[in-house]
Amino acid sequence: MEWLKHLRVSLAIEFADRPMIGLLATVSPDHTAAGRCVVLRDVTEDGQLVFTTDSRSEKMSHLSTNSSAECVFWLPTLRLQFRIAGKVSIDPARRVAIWAKLSPATQDTFFGPPPGTRKDEITDFTDDTDPETAKSQSVQSAKSLLPSSFPAQFAVLGLTPDRVESLDLTTDPHTRVVFSQKSGWQPVAINP
Amino acid sequence: MEWLKHLRVSLAIEFADRPMIGLLATVSPDHTAAGRCVVLRDVTEDGQLVFTTDSRSEKMSHLSTNSSAECVFWLPTLRLQFRIAGKVSIDPARRVAIWAKLSPATQDTFFGPPPGTRKDEITDFTDDTDPETAKSQSVQSAKSLLPSSFPAQFAVLGLTPDRVESLDLTTDPHTRVVFSQKSGWQPVAINP
Repeated sequence: MEWLKHLRVSLAIEFADRPMIGLLATVSPDHTAAGRCVVLRDVTEDGQLVFTTDSRSEKMSHLSTNSSAECVFWLPTLRLQFRIAGKVSIDPARRVAIWAKLSPATQDTFFGPPPGTRKDEITDFTDDTDPETAKSQSVQSAKSLLPSSFPAQFAVLGLTPDRVESLDLTTDPHTRVVFSQKSGWQPVAINP
Repeated sequence: MEWLKHLRVSLAIEFADRPMIGLLATVSPDHTAAGRCVVLRDVTEDGQLVFTTDSRSEKMSHLSTNSSAECVFWLPTLRLQFRIAGKVSIDPARRVAIWAKLSPATQDTFFGPPPGTRKDEITDFTDDTDPETAKSQSVQSAKSLLPSSFPAQFAVLGLTPDRVESLDLTTDPHTRVVFSQKSGWQPVAINP
């Protein structure tokens, strides 16, 4: 798949050792559009994009009612955009391997309260308790129950593409190419 | 609106004189998720986000059947994400003012063939015609019909927010705050 090679090389050039940040668009149960930044954890040999999430997150509730998603990467150094659309599934088999690749700080984020729920009071930020101490105690307490493993809410998602589009802004006119599974992933040039 | 001041200042710091690039999530007529980069042209005093588009584009067909959208800005220098969700409407009254602010190169992009339509052949890229000459002739020909104005397909879109969320990754734990119109735009701290 020509697009896969292009995507892999482009991501490597753009991000090097930094987190590969893209945008994941989903549809809410109310049929409204949603998007948020995500960190791409892996691109498999067959072109699946791998992400992690908290199973209690908003995006999980979206994907459980509408599994379609599009992941967008804007690569400013290359002036190149990739759009990768398809369906997302939960991939429990990859949890052990992906967990092991996460930094301790990232692992810690999975031991917090449910994402998106209201904090008790916004003034919590400025109360007398040292927030670093309180947070550390809370994480350590949760981790002690699961000394060498991940919490139940740690989930791995796989986006299986059915349509990929690249847009290269370094040419004039811009170069826009679409690849679709139903066309055997052959490149088709479209107008930008 | 506290979020509006924060957004304006953050965008100014992050982008300075460079284009303010965000990601716009929409829902297709087939109820699938879509996203793509967009350039933010303006933020009005009442918090509307202003974009331009070709009225023949994919995003216009999406928004004409489902006007919901979410615009996401990832500001790497500030390690800050903004999500701005709401409804998008076409804003013909702003076309003259926004067109005048576009660079000639950006104006030229609105005189091309319908975006997303197939080019005749992908080998067009390497044929004997100098593409710069051909493109220039085509744009000049179209412009001569509209010497000092914009083409019919030039559209201005306004996203009127009903929910805004900021996520600050510089703190530990991360600081996530949501503002919604129905709550009078008051900040509510939520768990990251």
